[in-house]
Amino acid sequence: MRYLLTALLAASLTQAVAQSKPSERLVNYVKPIVGTQRMGHTFPGATVPFGMVQLSPETDTASYELNGKYNPRVYEYCAGYQYEDKTIVGFSHTHFSGTGHSDLGDFLVMPTVGALKLNSGTADHPGSGYRSAFSHSNEVSQANYYKVKLDDSRVTAELTTTTRVGFHQYTFPKSDQSHIILDLMSGIYNYPDKNVWTYIHVVNDTLVTGYRRTNGWARNRVLYFALTFSKPFAQHGFANYSKREVYNGFWGKFNQRKNFPELAAPQIKAYFDFKTEEGEKIKLKMALSPVSMEGALNNLRTEAPGWNFDQIKEKGQQQWEDELHKIEIQAKTRTDKENFYTSMYHALINPTIYMDVDGQYKGVDGNIHKADGYVNYTTFSLWDTYRALHPLLNIIEPKRNADMVTSMLMHYRQSPEQMLPVWSNSGNENWCMSGYHSVPVIADAIIKNNVNVNANELLDACVTTARHRNYEGIGTYIDKGYVTNEVSGTSVSNTLEYAFDDWCIAQAAKKLGRTDIYNEFIKRSENFKNVYDKASGFMRPRLNDGTFRKTFDALSTNNQGFIEGNAWNYTLFVPHQPTELIELMGGEKRFVPYLDSLFTMHLPDKYFAETEDITRDGIIGNYVHGNEPSHHVAYLYNWTSQPWKTQERVRMILPKMYKPTADGLGGNDDTGQMSAWYIFSSLGFYPVAPGSGQYAIGSPAVQKATIHLAGNKTFVVDVKNQSEKNVYVQRMLLNGQPLNRLYITDAELMNGGTLTFYMSSKHK
Amino acid sequence: MRYLLTALLAASLTQAVAQSKPSERLVNYVKPIVGTQRMGHTFPGATVPFGMVQLSPETDTASYELNGKYNPRVYEYCAGYQYEDKTIVGFSHTHFSGTGHSDLGDFLVMPTVGALKLNSGTADHPGSGYRSAFSHSNEVSQANYYKVKLDDSRVTAELTTTTRVGFHQYTFPKSDQSHIILDLMSGIYNYPDKNVWTYIHVVNDTLVTGYRRTNGWARNRVLYFALTFSKPFAQHGFANYSKREVYNGFWGKFNQRKNFPELAAPQIKAYFDFKTEEGEKIKLKMALSPVSMEGALNNLRTEAPGWNFDQIKEKGQQQWEDELHKIEIQAKTRTDKENFYTSMYHALINPTIYMDVDGQYKGVDGNIHKADGYVNYTTFSLWDTYRALHPLLNIIEPKRNADMVTSMLMHYRQSPEQMLPVWSNSGNENWCMSGYHSVPVIADAIIKNNVNVNANELLDACVTTARHRNYEGIGTYIDKGYVTNEVSGTSVSNTLEYAFDDWCIAQAAKKLGRTDIYNEFIKRSENFKNVYDKASGFMRPRLNDGTFRKTFDALSTNNQGFIEGNAWNYTLFVPHQPTELIELMGGEKRFVPYLDSLFTMHLPDKYFAETEDITRDGIIGNYVHGNEPSHHVAYLYNWTSQPWKTQERVRMILPKMYKPTADGLGGNDDTGQMSAWYIFSSLGFYPVAPGSGQYAIGSPAVQKATIHLAGNKTFVVDVKNQSEKNVYVQRMLLNGQPLNRLYITDAELMNGGTLTFYMSSKHK
Repeated sequence: MRYLLTALLAASLTQAVAQSKPSERLVNYVKPIVGTQRMGHTFPGATVPFGMVQLSPETDTASYELNGKYNPRVYEYCAGYQYEDKTIVGFSHTHFSGTGHSDLGDFLVMPTVGALKLNSGTADHPGSGYRSAFSHSNEVSQANYYKVKLDDSRVTAELTTTTRVGFHQYTFPKSDQSHIILDLMSGIYNYPDKNVWTYIHVVNDTLVTGYRRTNGWARNRVLYFALTFSKPFAQHGFANYSKREVYNGFWGKFNQRKNFPELAAPQIKAYFDFKTEEGEKIKLKMALSPVSMEGALNNLRTEAPGWNFDQIKEKGQQQWEDELHKIEIQAKTRTDKENFYTSMYHALINPTIYMDVDGQYKGVDGNIHKADGYVNYTTFSLWDTYRALHPLLNIIEPKRNADMVTSMLMHYRQSPEQMLPVWSNSGNENWCMSGYHSVPVIADAIIKNNVNVNANELLDACVTTARHRNYEGIGTYIDKGYVTNEVSGTSVSNTLEYAFDDWCIAQAAKKLGRTDIYNEFIKRSENFKNVYDKASGFMRPRLNDGTFRKTFDALSTNNQGFIEGNAWNYTLFVPHQPTELIELMGGEKRFVPYLDSLFTMHLPDKYFAETEDITRDGIIGNYVHGNEPSHHVAYLYNWTSQPWKTQERVRMILPKMYKPTADGLGGNDDTGQMSAWYIFSSLGFYPVAPGSGQYAIGSPAVQKATIHLAGNKTFVVDVKNQSEKNVYVQRMLLNGQPLNRLYITDAELMNGGTLTFYMSSKHK
Repeated sequence: MRYLLTALLAASLTQAVAQSKPSERLVNYVKPIVGTQRMGHTFPGATVPFGMVQLSPETDTASYELNGKYNPRVYEYCAGYQYEDKTIVGFSHTHFSGTGHSDLGDFLVMPTVGALKLNSGTADHPGSGYRSAFSHSNEVSQANYYKVKLDDSRVTAELTTTTRVGFHQYTFPKSDQSHIILDLMSGIYNYPDKNVWTYIHVVNDTLVTGYRRTNGWARNRVLYFALTFSKPFAQHGFANYSKREVYNGFWGKFNQRKNFPELAAPQIKAYFDFKTEEGEKIKLKMALSPVSMEGALNNLRTEAPGWNFDQIKEKGQQQWEDELHKIEIQAKTRTDKENFYTSMYHALINPTIYMDVDGQYKGVDGNIHKADGYVNYTTFSLWDTYRALHPLLNIIEPKRNADMVTSMLMHYRQSPEQMLPVWSNSGNENWCMSGYHSVPVIADAIIKNNVNVNANELLDACVTTARHRNYEGIGTYIDKGYVTNEVSGTSVSNTLEYAFDDWCIAQAAKKLGRTDIYNEFIKRSENFKNVYDKASGFMRPRLNDGTFRKTFDALSTNNQGFIEGNAWNYTLFVPHQPTELIELMGGEKRFVPYLDSLFTMHLPDKYFAETEDITRDGIIGNYVHGNEPSHHVAYLYNWTSQPWKTQERVRMILPKMYKPTADGLGGNDDTGQMSAWYIFSSLGFYPVAPGSGQYAIGSPAVQKATIHLAGNKTFVVDVKNQSEKNVYVQRMLLNGQPLNRLYITDAELMNGGTLTFYMSSKHK
């Protein structure tokens, strides 16, 4: 089994290498630091593509509560790092990339020198704890490599990874009191009692294993580790900060704090002492496992047997290089390339591999399972990623996307609720956000013939999920054609998203010849009409009695029946039926001005203040790019007589919302969805309705792009007369033949060929 | 693997059946109720020999703290049941038998009728919760069968088990509101925060799985279950009593209390609702696993596939019958037989099987292991059981005892501390009591050629354990020849017990030709001399500077350097060298009066009050039979010129300390050690020094006994002129030849034969 998986991975790599021509080193354009300031919620540390480990510095790990109240700053630390901060707390092994909610931050390690301090200290007084000051001038952040000088200890820390192993290289000054601290209490989103249980076992003077059970966003999670040191530690010790210690009466039998081999309690820390020479390097490798300490040890020994830091770093960077070469672009400016390849980087971090090298993983049912013939994934932020990330993966990572679909099916099979994943976090379900958006990912893969399990079983899983009457208003949705305001605070978002998801089920059913399913769900897909209020011209919460809710503010995102969006934006959420939507809204004569207004109107500050997840820059008029519900909106002009406005808007959004700087993202990257939008849009097309098999034409920002596809095919985007001003598409050729429509099909793309754009500064 | 184990077990059973001649049904003499009153700490419920499940009623589950202070009553509820109590809280699946400390009580189930009550209620007002009144007149307690009528609900509950499955049969009255409550919060020794984490998964309307992680006497323990119902429940629900519920904001997506399939939190309860007809039986089977929910399910399906309660009950009773027939006795009174076979029953409950049917178990290192070719055991209360229980098992359960020794070796291999077990509780080490008493068990097995692993590896494990300088004073013991008063509160107990254990190592080393080990440890075995204070005539705490501690009270057990014993009793703890002890204490002229005084002196009440674990009845003069340190003491007269006093004392102790009534045990049964003492002593001999290969002659209480041995051999104890008054051994024949010594050897016993005692009312 392990051989098989390794072989599959190797084959996938080989294919990639064969496809790409590494004429230039694309990792040089990757800037992981992008989005680490303000609302991007990305992390600057090291990871390989889709890696289980994301080894990155924490500049703070805000506590969920401060003085007994909710601490609003917790939100800033979803990825553990904020660019403005002046101190580093330590380096932990798991991080979300761009989420709007926090968890992880497992197994924080920090090198220190001098008197032992086991508390982390404060940002204002880093010397009060093991925390250290640092400056960005002493910081290097690359794909799979992070380096920083810790000013307080004069230790230089370098980090790199394999899929399941974090590799630390610490260069110490001369000291009799060098320490490495392993803080098992630290974590991102430090909800009180989040740490349920921790265990540490010092196996010998270079090997430590353990685990932590947490009750956080993943409500029922255990993560195991195996940690090895390049140099034996001289001594070690523990501290136990748990409220209560059971059977401490028996502790007299040993000194269980100093050089004792194990400790089990909710709140513990460990330290390891060394004597170091000036410039001496101490290296650490920590492997993770969702299964067991032995699984972690096996991952460690299989993936990172030696101590050659540079080799591991280079191997991971080559993995990135191979991934980045799947789309080779030509662009006028370095900025464009940095934006593009940083987007590629951020898009290919998630979902994350979730299994040991032997294929074992812990399922959502709490049992250990073995991935048989596929790679199992988690971190499915599906409300975000069904839109563009999974369609992108279908093109450049077809094997991985098929395996992700299989992972969703396994989640379904193991789910106590018998549901496909909504938000899969470390093999846990947190039911975050609206809809059931495994469905469009699966339907899109079925439509595109990219599944590696029985498609009918996948369809059945979609249908069962969509018929789950007890789940967030589905019962009323089935009975009345809309989710009633009474049963869900986000009844309109849910109705609109269920309707789209149902249309996806219908498309997959059609493809598979399942007429009964098609009929049932194509009917349900019309349900968007049931929440459209002609009087106000908006989608609007509707009550059980059939009337629309009276209190209603179309600009507010707060308690209006929507989630991360207001009525103005969400009213446009009918990606599967834009023509019917336009008709519903009174035809083009009313629809185009509505769309224009969205981008140009002034959103009063009070509404901005309640818009989640974005900075002021993340918004254009009332168009909120920093959240996802409007990601398809700029492309809707294609269904009117003024598609040039799509071209104009896309080219306006691209440079405005994406900059290759720490503050370059206007909103959460959302595990790659924001980045996937960038990639598609800068290539000149976008999947408005996954499941349709079509990509709507926009306006390419690249000069040329070569997309490497399976079977050594390429799809080339060739842009003539490209310039900042030439944002309008004058005409197009597909494989030399005029393309007189505003979309290309997935078949056209995947068969390979050339799409030639002729650009102009004037629209047609 | 499973086949192999099953085959081994079957072979063991077949052997037993073949050996015994079931002329009478011996289980009829077993009274599990013995010891359930006062200090016996036994349980009245159902279990099979060495079973993983002990399914028994809780009459209370005292909380460790009451109003913020230690609750002294917690101690009474080590086995969950106190005979005086008038109410039953429910039926849980794990119980210690006779321990002096509490834990377990996992997965409490209770049938109720009427309005749903999820709190347990109080003993004074059982109607205030799900608790019910009951009376002993409606109670049946047999080997592997327990029955009681619950007065409040009118439900009759019947319990039986297989090794890993508890089988409940509830006969309900007619009701639309019949419930079965599964209280996952309840446990014995309810230390605050003892419940670390709980999970429940309602798989379908007849199957529930889950687990509980506890931090109790076993500090780091998870127990999994699979529960199945004979009738589908109409509905189910949960209650969550945890202080905090993470992400309850998302609970709006479902009603997660009613008919929801899962819940994970520290403090939860579940209920299952039925409509029942008058007299309708609802049956439940709950399987346990230390490994996983799937392991529990596999145990359930393998061991108890059907719903025939009587068949399971009968099968388990037949297992007991087979075990009991290993020693067939003739006795004058039913009382004698009840005492004997109840002792056999209590002796063969522990240690307990600790592995799934597929051989998997969770080791003391927290990893999953597989028992390869042996049965893995836990519940080693070794400070108690090395004395007589394991020697007994070596005779009548040689295969099991060898597997227990192997289990100890596996524990050693997996132990982070690299130590043999001290007190193994559910695969955890709690280091309870003094000494390292795996050693005498292992040495005794080596001496008796009853090990199924490499004996040299066993010896090495003993040596490594005994050289563990950091463990409770071993460092000072090695350096100075005694554990100093400064490093251990029980320095004298430790010194004496280490010395005995070391002598055992020397015996095993001698047998294996390991001269260096022999020399090292035979020298250490003399260390008992180093804590003997000639001035006071007692073993006495000794300081680092070599002087004896000044403050000293030879009658007190409180902070005098001893554990569960005072200097008067512990001074006699040199079981391996009685002759040297007598010499040390001034020869027979001083030793015999000392021993006489022990049994006849008056112990002032203030000293009794501080003597743990026993009732007033558990003490004879200053001789404390209710605790273990003096269990060999009555036999020490054999090393003087007055062995008749041994005979007299033994025959006095037997009826005084063992009665076939609820209050029949004068102290904790201590997982069978008290019972094993009864069995040996009533047969007429006792293993004063395990590892010696000898049994000291006492005075038999039986008329005749046939011990069935391996290889179809028997050892018969034939007692002539037996009567209550004829307690003195006039002469003995071994296989017809005069036996002119005060011991028999293990070889003589195990080869089979007949030991004939001629009794008299006058001593020689």
